[in-house]
Amino acid sequence: MAFEFKEESIIQQETDLFIGVLKWILYAAFIGIMVGVSTTIFLKALGWSTQYTHQYNYYFLLLPLAFFSSSWLIKKLASEAEGHGTDKVIEAVHLRSGKINPMVIPVKLVATVLTIAFGGSAGKEGPCAQIGAGLSSLFADIFKFSDEDRKKFVICGISAGFSSVFGTPIAGAIFGVEVLFVGNLLYGVLLPSFIAGMVSFYVTTLLGITYLYSPLPFVPDLSEMFLLKVIVSGVFFGICSLVLIECMNYFKKLSGKINASEHVKALVGGFSLVVLALIFSPMYLGLGMDTVESTVQGNTVEWYAFLLKMVFTGITLSFGGSGGILTPIFFIGSTAGVFFAEVFGLDIATFAAIGLVSVLSGATKSPIASSIMSIEIFGPHIGPYAAIACIISFIISGPRSVYPSQVFSLKKFI
Amino acid sequence: MAFEFKEESIIQQETDLFIGVLKWILYAAFIGIMVGVSTTIFLKALGWSTQYTHQYNYYFLLLPLAFFSSSWLIKKLASEAEGHGTDKVIEAVHLRSGKINPMVIPVKLVATVLTIAFGGSAGKEGPCAQIGAGLSSLFADIFKFSDEDRKKFVICGISAGFSSVFGTPIAGAIFGVEVLFVGNLLYGVLLPSFIAGMVSFYVTTLLGITYLYSPLPFVPDLSEMFLLKVIVSGVFFGICSLVLIECMNYFKKLSGKINASEHVKALVGGFSLVVLALIFSPMYLGLGMDTVESTVQGNTVEWYAFLLKMVFTGITLSFGGSGGILTPIFFIGSTAGVFFAEVFGLDIATFAAIGLVSVLSGATKSPIASSIMSIEIFGPHIGPYAAIACIISFIISGPRSVYPSQVFSLKKFI
Repeated sequence: MAFEFKEESIIQQETDLFIGVLKWILYAAFIGIMVGVSTTIFLKALGWSTQYTHQYNYYFLLLPLAFFSSSWLIKKLASEAEGHGTDKVIEAVHLRSGKINPMVIPVKLVATVLTIAFGGSAGKEGPCAQIGAGLSSLFADIFKFSDEDRKKFVICGISAGFSSVFGTPIAGAIFGVEVLFVGNLLYGVLLPSFIAGMVSFYVTTLLGITYLYSPLPFVPDLSEMFLLKVIVSGVFFGICSLVLIECMNYFKKLSGKINASEHVKALVGGFSLVVLALIFSPMYLGLGMDTVESTVQGNTVEWYAFLLKMVFTGITLSFGGSGGILTPIFFIGSTAGVFFAEVFGLDIATFAAIGLVSVLSGATKSPIASSIMSIEIFGPHIGPYAAIACIISFIISGPRSVYPSQVFSLKKFI
Repeated sequence: MAFEFKEESIIQQETDLFIGVLKWILYAAFIGIMVGVSTTIFLKALGWSTQYTHQYNYYFLLLPLAFFSSSWLIKKLASEAEGHGTDKVIEAVHLRSGKINPMVIPVKLVATVLTIAFGGSAGKEGPCAQIGAGLSSLFADIFKFSDEDRKKFVICGISAGFSSVFGTPIAGAIFGVEVLFVGNLLYGVLLPSFIAGMVSFYVTTLLGITYLYSPLPFVPDLSEMFLLKVIVSGVFFGICSLVLIECMNYFKKLSGKINASEHVKALVGGFSLVVLALIFSPMYLGLGMDTVESTVQGNTVEWYAFLLKMVFTGITLSFGGSGGILTPIFFIGSTAGVFFAEVFGLDIATFAAIGLVSVLSGATKSPIASSIMSIEIFGPHIGPYAAIACIISFIISGPRSVYPSQVFSLKKFI
């Protein structure tokens, strides 16, 4: 489309754009600081309490009690804080112009710390996104911004939450924008999302939070048909994503069918996890970042690890636990990568890394953010291959997602 | 949006998706090979002839003759090959379902080699995109694919052309997709574009082409308000992009006003460049990648280099020369970065790198591809900062582009 304009209007246009940029940089920086500080409080609280509980070998025996308290807190004080946070935020953006009950912020924080510290299998990004979005919504309400602006603030808050949890500012910011409308990146919120993401990442780093950064010593070997293997792995990770999504749905439906109060379900959920941890291993409990780090450094795990982690996570999120789903997805993706590498005799570290981002892409429908994350965490050499596996996983897993409130703005994935 | 499906339909759905993925991987790989081979031929021919002409100190004295021959060739054999190639391809996708005259391929190749080898200031990506798109269109015609499929093939061809010219497979593939519809990444062509991009990059690498890869030894210093400086630089690079776009328009209009044949204009254009090169320096002629590489390694240039390069490029592309616009944009962006760094006493290499991707983002309206390119060329540490400068430059330069055929599918950039 050709643009026609007069000389005087260019100055006016530029001034408007400049003021717009300046205004949104300031707002976004403010949101970034708010979210950075609160994410740090959450992450520190999570770190301390996990350290405390893990002094005891059988800390997870208290899981039923932890789930019970978490579900009681949520039921009593802020029912929006239930389940994994990100989907609730997506729903709020689409249906309520981003309006979020501020009570969600402290409740989600405490409920998630309780859940994860005692061994619930959940992630830390959901609460951060929800806390970020909640604070941004509060900020918009206090200063009486319009509905459209509030929506933008909340998207910034989500991006800021993701960036400061992952430690991958570009992928985090794009993730926040990409999960909202699959197939349609919102260019209009790119700037505030990036600024909020960078600033909150700055703040958490200054306050002492550290992140996974594990560049692979990877040199693709053209003679070994590496690209072909990556393509096949993409199909496998797509099927894993599909199984994961269905597994989450299964436990949600199961929980819905059981005719009991939330608190009783929480006790049942906690008790089931205790039994499963005693039978298999406590490694499936909690965030599981140790396992993720170990696999991307090339260490192996039980071949069925990715399947068991799905069960642990499904029970946690549908039976009283509170928390996000991305850290479990990292675990599932990287251990699925180990399985794939072992079956075909490939390099474990490489396919654990590709699995991590590909299952993320398929399960949350975020091929661009996941591709960028692969470069941010694993370095630029693996990036192009990981990107192809991410896109294939995105397509093969079909029009489903772990976030049921996502809006699909594309008809065909291929 | 919640998805409901029956057990049997999942299998059917997955089979369809799998066949779709497989089919498009094969098509895209084929296009990637075709484009990779022809890009290599073009790049080698360009390399050899440039090496040949540059043996002589005053090789550029033949510029009027080179422009004349280039414009004669285009006028006689394929008038679609005129100007910088990418815009013609964008137009073909939007208006003619990607139909491209196959004569464009050889004509564009020869005309661009003539233009650049004798000192015309133009880029190598436009011809590659046009050659890639032309071959893909021919392929679709021979095998009688539908209009929709042809469009997809042509987009793959563009992406493959970019990937194999830049040597940045992810950014190249996304660039091809992003420039077509500003504000709306086409998720449905992501897979074929990536595969075609990767494969053509593979092929050119195997055939001996090498690329700019210049990781910066960059550690952000939080105490120096680095983010703030990056934000200010983004505004500056946005204004540079705007000046560049207007400069291209100016020379295009000027050429339109002159009442003479294309061939006379070519002689005038070539002669003007000879005079300018003798007055200033021959460094503004040709691709100028030496200057780009030197600046991102921290070397300085004349402060007005970015402005002069705009003039050289404007004359080349509107007065008989053939070629792309991106390599000049790299030159303009990186030397504008040197200017900015010198004025504010900052690190030259860092701001040359940020300038390179930010002016690219503003001038071609590709904030995502440019951000990714910053990581692919300069490493993950500079990435987040470069991304912010890219987005600001994208906004500040307003709803204009060096590609007038781009379709803007967003109303507001902020």
